[in-house]
Amino acid sequence: MVIERCRTLAGFTEEPGFTTRTFLSAPMRQVHARVRSWMEEAGMRVRVDDAGSIRGCYEARTADAPRLYIGSHLDTVPRAGAFDGILGVVMGIALVGGLHGRRFGFHIEVIGFSDEEGVRFGVPFIGSRALVGDLGEDLVAIREAIREFGLDPARLGLACADDAAIGFVEFHIEQGPVLEELGYPVGLVDAIAGQSRLTVVFHGKANHAGTTPMGLRRDALAGAAEWVVAVERTASRIAGMVATVGQVEVHAGASNVIPGEVSVSLDARHAENSVRRGAVESMAAAAREIAARRGLRVSIEPQLDQASVAMDAGLTGMLERAVAGSGLPVHRMISGAGHDAMIMARRMPAAMLFLRSPGGVSHHPDETVLAEDVAAGLRVGLGFLEELEGRDG
Amino acid sequence: MVIERCRTLAGFTEEPGFTTRTFLSAPMRQVHARVRSWMEEAGMRVRVDDAGSIRGCYEARTADAPRLYIGSHLDTVPRAGAFDGILGVVMGIALVGGLHGRRFGFHIEVIGFSDEEGVRFGVPFIGSRALVGDLGEDLVAIREAIREFGLDPARLGLACADDAAIGFVEFHIEQGPVLEELGYPVGLVDAIAGQSRLTVVFHGKANHAGTTPMGLRRDALAGAAEWVVAVERTASRIAGMVATVGQVEVHAGASNVIPGEVSVSLDARHAENSVRRGAVESMAAAAREIAARRGLRVSIEPQLDQASVAMDAGLTGMLERAVAGSGLPVHRMISGAGHDAMIMARRMPAAMLFLRSPGGVSHHPDETVLAEDVAAGLRVGLGFLEELEGRDG
Repeated sequence: MVIERCRTLAGFTEEPGFTTRTFLSAPMRQVHARVRSWMEEAGMRVRVDDAGSIRGCYEARTADAPRLYIGSHLDTVPRAGAFDGILGVVMGIALVGGLHGRRFGFHIEVIGFSDEEGVRFGVPFIGSRALVGDLGEDLVAIREAIREFGLDPARLGLACADDAAIGFVEFHIEQGPVLEELGYPVGLVDAIAGQSRLTVVFHGKANHAGTTPMGLRRDALAGAAEWVVAVERTASRIAGMVATVGQVEVHAGASNVIPGEVSVSLDARHAENSVRRGAVESMAAAAREIAARRGLRVSIEPQLDQASVAMDAGLTGMLERAVAGSGLPVHRMISGAGHDAMIMARRMPAAMLFLRSPGGVSHHPDETVLAEDVAAGLRVGLGFLEELEGRDG
Repeated sequence: MVIERCRTLAGFTEEPGFTTRTFLSAPMRQVHARVRSWMEEAGMRVRVDDAGSIRGCYEARTADAPRLYIGSHLDTVPRAGAFDGILGVVMGIALVGGLHGRRFGFHIEVIGFSDEEGVRFGVPFIGSRALVGDLGEDLVAIREAIREFGLDPARLGLACADDAAIGFVEFHIEQGPVLEELGYPVGLVDAIAGQSRLTVVFHGKANHAGTTPMGLRRDALAGAAEWVVAVERTASRIAGMVATVGQVEVHAGASNVIPGEVSVSLDARHAENSVRRGAVESMAAAAREIAARRGLRVSIEPQLDQASVAMDAGLTGMLERAVAGSGLPVHRMISGAGHDAMIMARRMPAAMLFLRSPGGVSHHPDETVLAEDVAAGLRVGLGFLEELEGRDG
């Protein structure tokens, strides 16, 4: 049922034939209507907050109980799969629905965040940032979109989580190949990796490809290529490190002109900030060494230095016991991608459970999840609720 | 005067502020008017043939004499310099003008070809191909442009060189740094290098840059980068070889996505066809080895395999004696770029004299030539005419 529901929501799209659904776009209304009906069917009271996130509250035995948040996001990248984000919302609903009216000593609020991917305005995490109270006042275009959707940006403050929060739990597909390689259905996230983004530009000299002998060239692309190989080698030698050059721009970009200037991107991630920063520094040093040796000039522009975010040890430990208690192998891992849990951790304990991604595929129509892994995840969720009930209930 | 005239012609352009003048574009009419007046002033009879090349004939002592062609092209690349091609035409006129009415045993026809760069229709060498009778019948757009310029494509056959041709001599800037490195004003071209162009595509697997461990990647860009370095290394080890990767296209081309497919161009040139083909085969083998080792797939598409063209030993020897006779150092070299002389060689002996390119700069507004080198080139030209007169006159 969870997978079927995710597939249903994937049909609500801005681009026929694909799943593309950005912050407060028209198809988000259809998603809200469907999610609302499922939430109500599971016994929740539903509202859409003024950041456009849909929130269903399954009440505790007592009104003044603390609150556990479960959720993820309902927006997508362009031409997305059906599960990134969506799965965590639908599993939250399924978990509550599976309680069949059984009440706990804490409220359970299932959230479908309005934006995590940041596609529409280039600003990610709008939903979760509103909930932790970190959405800047200056986001004029976002406030206008909120108004156009029929919500009230002046009331964004009311989207904030209440103070008596137990924490936030996010179920999410891994979006990588690690669990599949291990043959494990689920994984516990210890931390969300910190991330550096840089732009590195090699400046050489454009020249005629036919008339400039090899020894008299200052080929910016040959230098950049040597560096791409060095980045890969450096990252491969550091456990848990990933580094990627994903963009290359070549000027002049003609087959018969020696490239005079080449700009490349670097994306480097690691759970330990010091390891990541050290690796980036060593990559920058390699760029300088390569440039100097080749008579090139290199400029290195940092674009982003985002610290890693630890998940809460207490909540993660409870999730781990629920994994073990469900007879599943326990595996702790780092999330290389950012998630709403990273934002929620600013205000409350946060934890994540990854579900195996077949083929490691994500951000693509082929993205999928196994029905048996969803069932395993729901068992873990129930075990977690029961352990939490034992502790707080 | 030669340099000043080249600068004057550079002012006739399709794009104000730059020199851009393609095949039979409007500013070519202004160029023709100016060149015609200079040719007439030097004592030539002038016509524009039906391929749009301007041709000035300085007659021999007798009407049935054989004919020496001297020239180059009058079109330019976009945002060009003032000398590529133009210099050879203007020097031809200056050489004839410097004869002050002295006649030889051969006609001297100075030609300003209408197209060598091939910018307008993607078809290069229109002028010289018409002259050797190798312009295909099927070039509809070119024939239409000829008509629009006021010429008659049905009369293209009359553009052909007559049978009693002594040969073709082209003065041209080197467009490379070799003569400057040596400190020599001029160089003799032994051959125009053969050229291979290929497109090499590495196919890997696009994946999330944060969630895919280094060991589980199939990064098409890392493979391509390793190959770019291998191409450079291979070419550097072969005397006279040049090889260039000038274009790179990365898919998906996002900083946080491991590249799934990367397409790169290869331009490889050498005077010896067997050396060039052997080098390209070894580069292709390197691509296959790199791909296999990295779990990538590689496809290699040949785009062009153009044989090298030898210049005529007799004419080049006469030019060489004229160089030495002018007290200049003799240097024989290979042209890495194609030139009209390469086409003319299909029908008659052809020879080229390169003039030093300051900074090796060409196809750029900074392209220039030294006045003293032009003077040296004209002395060589006169010496050549006198030697030819001694042989044929």
